[in-house]
Amino acid sequence: MTLGVGLVGSAFMGRAHSQAWRSVAAFFDLPVTPVMAAIAGRDPVRTEAAARRLGWASSETDWRRLLERDDIHIIDICTPGDSHAEIAIAALDAGKHVICEKPLANTVEEAEAMAAAAAKAAQSGVRAMVAFNYRRVPAVALARRFVEQGRLGTIHHVRGQYLQDWIVDPAFPLVWRLQKDRAGSGALGDIGAHIIDTAQFVVGDLLAGVSGMTETFVKERPLAETSSGLTGGTTSAGTGPVTVDDAALFTGRFRGGALGSFEATRFASGRKNALRLEVNGSDGSLFFDFEAMNDLWFHDHTLPAAEGGFRRIIVTEADHPYAGAWWPPGHGLGYEHSFVHEVRDFLVAVAEGVDPPPSFADGLAVQQVLAAVEASAASDSRYVTVRDR
Amino acid sequence: MTLGVGLVGSAFMGRAHSQAWRSVAAFFDLPVTPVMAAIAGRDPVRTEAAARRLGWASSETDWRRLLERDDIHIIDICTPGDSHAEIAIAALDAGKHVICEKPLANTVEEAEAMAAAAAKAAQSGVRAMVAFNYRRVPAVALARRFVEQGRLGTIHHVRGQYLQDWIVDPAFPLVWRLQKDRAGSGALGDIGAHIIDTAQFVVGDLLAGVSGMTETFVKERPLAETSSGLTGGTTSAGTGPVTVDDAALFTGRFRGGALGSFEATRFASGRKNALRLEVNGSDGSLFFDFEAMNDLWFHDHTLPAAEGGFRRIIVTEADHPYAGAWWPPGHGLGYEHSFVHEVRDFLVAVAEGVDPPPSFADGLAVQQVLAAVEASAASDSRYVTVRDR
Amino acid sequence: MTLGVGLVGSAFMGRAHSQAWRSVAAFFDLPVTPVMAAIAGRDPVRTEAAARRLGWASSETDWRRLLERDDIHIIDICTPGDSHAEIAIAALDAGKHVICEKPLANTVEEAEAMAAAAAKAAQSGVRAMVAFNYRRVPAVALARRFVEQGRLGTIHHVRGQYLQDWIVDPAFPLVWRLQKDRAGSGALGDIGAHIIDTAQFVVGDLLAGVSGMTETFVKERPLAETSSGLTGGTTSAGTGPVTVDDAALFTGRFRGGALGSFEATRFASGRKNALRLEVNGSDGSLFFDFEAMNDLWFHDHTLPAAEGGFRRIIVTEADHPYAGAWWPPGHGLGYEHSFVHEVRDFLVAVAEGVDPPPSFADGLAVQQVLAAVEASAASDSRYVTVRDR
Amino acid sequence: MTLGVGLVGSAFMGRAHSQAWRSVAAFFDLPVTPVMAAIAGRDPVRTEAAARRLGWASSETDWRRLLERDDIHIIDICTPGDSHAEIAIAALDAGKHVICEKPLANTVEEAEAMAAAAAKAAQSGVRAMVAFNYRRVPAVALARRFVEQGRLGTIHHVRGQYLQDWIVDPAFPLVWRLQKDRAGSGALGDIGAHIIDTAQFVVGDLLAGVSGMTETFVKERPLAETSSGLTGGTTSAGTGPVTVDDAALFTGRFRGGALGSFEATRFASGRKNALRLEVNGSDGSLFFDFEAMNDLWFHDHTLPAAEGGFRRIIVTEADHPYAGAWWPPGHGLGYEHSFVHEVRDFLVAVAEGVDPPPSFADGLAVQQVLAAVEASAASDSRYVTVRDR
Repeated sequence: MTLGVGLVGSAFMGRAHSQAWRSVAAFFDLPVTPVMAAIAGRDPVRTEAAARRLGWASSETDWRRLLERDDIHIIDICTPGDSHAEIAIAALDAGKHVICEKPLANTVEEAEAMAAAAAKAAQSGVRAMVAFNYRRVPAVALARRFVEQGRLGTIHHVRGQYLQDWIVDPAFPLVWRLQKDRAGSGALGDIGAHIIDTAQFVVGDLLAGVSGMTETFVKERPLAETSSGLTGGTTSAGTGPVTVDDAALFTGRFRGGALGSFEATRFASGRKNALRLEVNGSDGSLFFDFEAMNDLWFHDHTLPAAEGGFRRIIVTEADHPYAGAWWPPGHGLGYEHSFVHEVRDFLVAVAEGVDPPPSFADGLAVQQVLAAVEASAASDSRYVTVRDR
Repeated sequence: MTLGVGLVGSAFMGRAHSQAWRSVAAFFDLPVTPVMAAIAGRDPVRTEAAARRLGWASSETDWRRLLERDDIHIIDICTPGDSHAEIAIAALDAGKHVICEKPLANTVEEAEAMAAAAAKAAQSGVRAMVAFNYRRVPAVALARRFVEQGRLGTIHHVRGQYLQDWIVDPAFPLVWRLQKDRAGSGALGDIGAHIIDTAQFVVGDLLAGVSGMTETFVKERPLAETSSGLTGGTTSAGTGPVTVDDAALFTGRFRGGALGSFEATRFASGRKNALRLEVNGSDGSLFFDFEAMNDLWFHDHTLPAAEGGFRRIIVTEADHPYAGAWWPPGHGLGYEHSFVHEVRDFLVAVAEGVDPPPSFADGLAVQQVLAAVEASAASDSRYVTVRDR
Repeated sequence: MTLGVGLVGSAFMGRAHSQAWRSVAAFFDLPVTPVMAAIAGRDPVRTEAAARRLGWASSETDWRRLLERDDIHIIDICTPGDSHAEIAIAALDAGKHVICEKPLANTVEEAEAMAAAAAKAAQSGVRAMVAFNYRRVPAVALARRFVEQGRLGTIHHVRGQYLQDWIVDPAFPLVWRLQKDRAGSGALGDIGAHIIDTAQFVVGDLLAGVSGMTETFVKERPLAETSSGLTGGTTSAGTGPVTVDDAALFTGRFRGGALGSFEATRFASGRKNALRLEVNGSDGSLFFDFEAMNDLWFHDHTLPAAEGGFRRIIVTEADHPYAGAWWPPGHGLGYEHSFVHEVRDFLVAVAEGVDPPPSFADGLAVQQVLAAVEASAASDSRYVTVRDR
Repeated sequence: MTLGVGLVGSAFMGRAHSQAWRSVAAFFDLPVTPVMAAIAGRDPVRTEAAARRLGWASSETDWRRLLERDDIHIIDICTPGDSHAEIAIAALDAGKHVICEKPLANTVEEAEAMAAAAAKAAQSGVRAMVAFNYRRVPAVALARRFVEQGRLGTIHHVRGQYLQDWIVDPAFPLVWRLQKDRAGSGALGDIGAHIIDTAQFVVGDLLAGVSGMTETFVKERPLAETSSGLTGGTTSAGTGPVTVDDAALFTGRFRGGALGSFEATRFASGRKNALRLEVNGSDGSLFFDFEAMNDLWFHDHTLPAAEGGFRRIIVTEADHPYAGAWWPPGHGLGYEHSFVHEVRDFLVAVAEGVDPPPSFADGLAVQQVLAAVEASAASDSRYVTVRDR
């Protein structure tokens, strides 16, 4: 059986997802075969070029066209957050399975509507998934397995960081990711969302409440003439206000009693994509840093102290999550492999008629934490309970 | 010229300071020579044994005797925090120079009294210093030098952690460090104090306000029959309440605008003595971890991106702080060397008639941060301004 | 313009090359577009399955058929070493461009014939390349750039290791890679060839002579019923002799005066794919380990000693070799990306009418070093001059 | 009981040993108490100054005087290698216990005479030890323990490196360590001796034969006016020939069948004191690097592959060799602690009437390896059997 895929958006995420769709069948045994049917974008020339380059059979200039096509069964949403709700809800209503990039939406309200739409669609066998790809980095999936197996015992500490440095220079232009109306929030929603989801996934628990603090270090930036999300393009003479946070810090408590300490920033000079997670439990600890994405560090606290210590597990063994599909041990994977694993799991879930995690409800849970952090930051860092979904 | 030293306390810190006094003259050119005159402790047999073992010429069973002796010019206080104020103030009043272990005191009020006594004593040339030894780990001193030289530019982030794991086991007994009346506070005052001072020292700035959260994971522990600070000794049948925090998290803002993120815990399985500091500035970043204490990691953000990256500086070069006095490059130093450097700087300052940093006022500044963290933790993590000294 | 590709072999290397051909046009601007025309293998069913899975338009059961097809312009040889010479020479004679997996051949004689065929073919514009993919790991290419720019000064030391552990277990079966008639040699030719080429490439110099030592730790192994190169498959009752080396050590001298120290082994427990290279020069040093393949460690010896140290360059910046085509900084690449870069450079060279390095002559140079190592090992480690090409 | 110590030599090693004698009794329970009786040196003024600074009760200008004194029972030899034999043999003949710095001697002949003298002295209860201090770095001692306990299984590979960079600059003067008549050999005897002994100690096996290669990169250097071993001092106008090796590489076979790969160099820019040892066995592997001297990396190959990996054991636990005597876990030790452990073990052995390893015979065994390396290097790297002792 084949399933047609229609992708919306051709920038950074569009390229990553395209590579995933193009590669997945070569490495994984799939119950259904994806067909790269169409890519949608506003500019006809650029979209057609993207189709050719990225391997899509056709292009559309309106994402709504994808919903009308019978040869398309899956909508993959790779646009900025302000359009997620509209596209996803329409797609689900049209009976298409949906993968949606993170953060699920720019507001809790949108996310709630999306989760509701997904819940309703699920009743007719239509599936929805939010694309927190870091869950499917093999080392992160292995971390989850260790926690699930009880290797960490009672968890006391969860430490999440996502450190980048791409806007340290005040001359970096005002790209869309720095504008609240497009991006929803700054470091918090963009990369903070990732560490929240990754932490909640690995620990298997949810944040109960948080105390937050945010900052915009550079408050005015040059206007970008051609703005992409991550690179500057050319800049014009004027400047404009940065309307999102440059950095967000928060502490929190998990429902199970663990303490959480989180930080998301785009101002950590020298840290390029340091998504880090450390978990300390009574029986063991784990550490992960995406800048060395094939490694998981594990400390087994049940060993005699004389032989304890963090061990570097190179997560490329046949018995490791996802790794067996690729290369022999020690032959590391890269960033985009997480997307290959994502669409693989999505296709398997669709074929099996189950919901592929993380669900839109999981995406909403992250959104609620983001909202609680912002609410706390807006009221003197006062502890704010994360709203129950 | 020689200066007689009298040390109070013969446990962990007493041993470390003794080794410092015993070694300093062999490695550093000193303007004055310290003489290890006497050690004071309550138990006459144990104190006399400590004197012999640690190299003190005599022993006293009452620290007040040290203050009366003319051959003693320096009082080195290595007792738990609840006795610091009494001993230090009496010593300063008696015209003795004072080195006092950290935290300066168990309360802000005591610390204020001590700072006042030190200020008064300074007018008659009597010197006081609080023993935040980590300032004098060569890598930390080098970090300070980099910041001072402007190598980091505008500082945006300060990230401090002090992670230990010695009480993860609920069967670990109720030693004095877990009792509020003796220790003042738990992880916060014991090791949190170190990262606060280290961070404020390296950055050259003070925390303006903080938002805190504390937790006691294990609330009841076996009573210790013979209690030392860090090891269990024998335990008796009963249990007692842990009256201090096991872990403390706080975020904060520095006066200069940097964000601070701090964590002190004794529940980080596998982390033994991980005092870590990362500083991110517009022109560079620094990272230090005491578990690899001879290394300072420096990223020069002014280099072309293609050749940037954190470099591991092994801080054992002749041009590095303190290191030239010891061994050739690459021959690392250990924990107690920081104390050797501490007494060296103390002796030089005394000889030169200047105040050796960190002063009691610096110690008070740390105490005020600790108090603000506790106040914030007690009121829903609300942001609390650190009181001005 | 398009160029048809025909690939021979569908095992480990066949899969890696297929992924390269499938991906290259999506990430790189190419002067010619590759078309995945056909894959050849002996077993018709398996080859056809491979064609479908790996994305080849057709399959052939005899590689000679590829040479006859007009729609095929490039032959990509991914078979064991014993068939390289025959296929490559025939392909070149047939006017097809050739990429050939390493080692170029199983003997110097074969390699010489191949180099001669390539030299002759070059006169009619037919190109040949040996697939030492590690040259095109961005960190290795950056290392070469540093040496080329003179950042290392006079080179004194070259230290190459390739450490694996996949046959430590004596129960691991006698796969073809452990049989001399198929594989030519063991660790030496398989992975030693990679470090020789990588070292000679980065340093820009050739080994003048070597002193070698080889060992076969496990001399008899269970016979493999279905033998692939790297995994055991099922085993039968009997055992057979291991006819290649398990490990090879050699020291050497480069023409420019540097000393070389090399080691290739499949018995380094815990080392999975540790291709490592360290180069020490008068002005700087470099270190690379494939187990952390996105990092290059660089020490700038011209800096003041107080700020020197090995820096970890995460080789994912836009200005780094190849990296700009992929993802933002800090988003690491994986093993197979080196093959994408390889076919990219091959296609560019073909389009430009120049020879894509490494040439068959470079492959021969490696073969000559391998032969010299074996000759030395066979005569009491006596220093053997590497034959001039 | 007390034992008087007389030390010969007051430079680098003299300072390190002095600190050991000064500190040992404060940290270890000793069956005998050392008394720092006298230090001997040629220059009366400098020696007396050294005595005062380093804590020796008296000074002598002729080492022979130490042998005549009844209050001296131990002779500690910290001079260059050319005087070891004379002093040690005389001291043993005089009934003094002897600790002698490494390498034991400058020639095999001298070393044989010393080993014979030690064997003879042992019959009258006089003890001799060669000061290979790295054996007593806790991480190295732990490595030995792991091998002894069989945690590594059958050993296949031993990889030793000692990398320094202090003479990379051709302007560095011709200090005594670069002169064959004083130093015996260069990198080989100075630091190569350390890795040979460390490797043979950890593995518990001896090198059976070696194939060597040496090089002197800088053949002429400025004359040093005041020459110490490691730093340049002032230089005069002229130059002189370097008569020792700058670097030495050798491969070898252990009696038990393991392959050895060794390198000693003073030309590895950026490597300061990188004494490294890796051992690979069928059941596990170990890695140590003195530049992170408190860490031992251990891979347990008997674990499932999915959770294997090199773990960083911070060797500061109470159950680790020597570490319990010092500080709590995670509080690292430094270079000179290895000497404290050395004199501690020496004193215990003397008190117990047993021979403290490494014996002079062990020192001779190292010397024989050095000689075999030199012999091999002198005859085209031909494999040379290490002479039996």
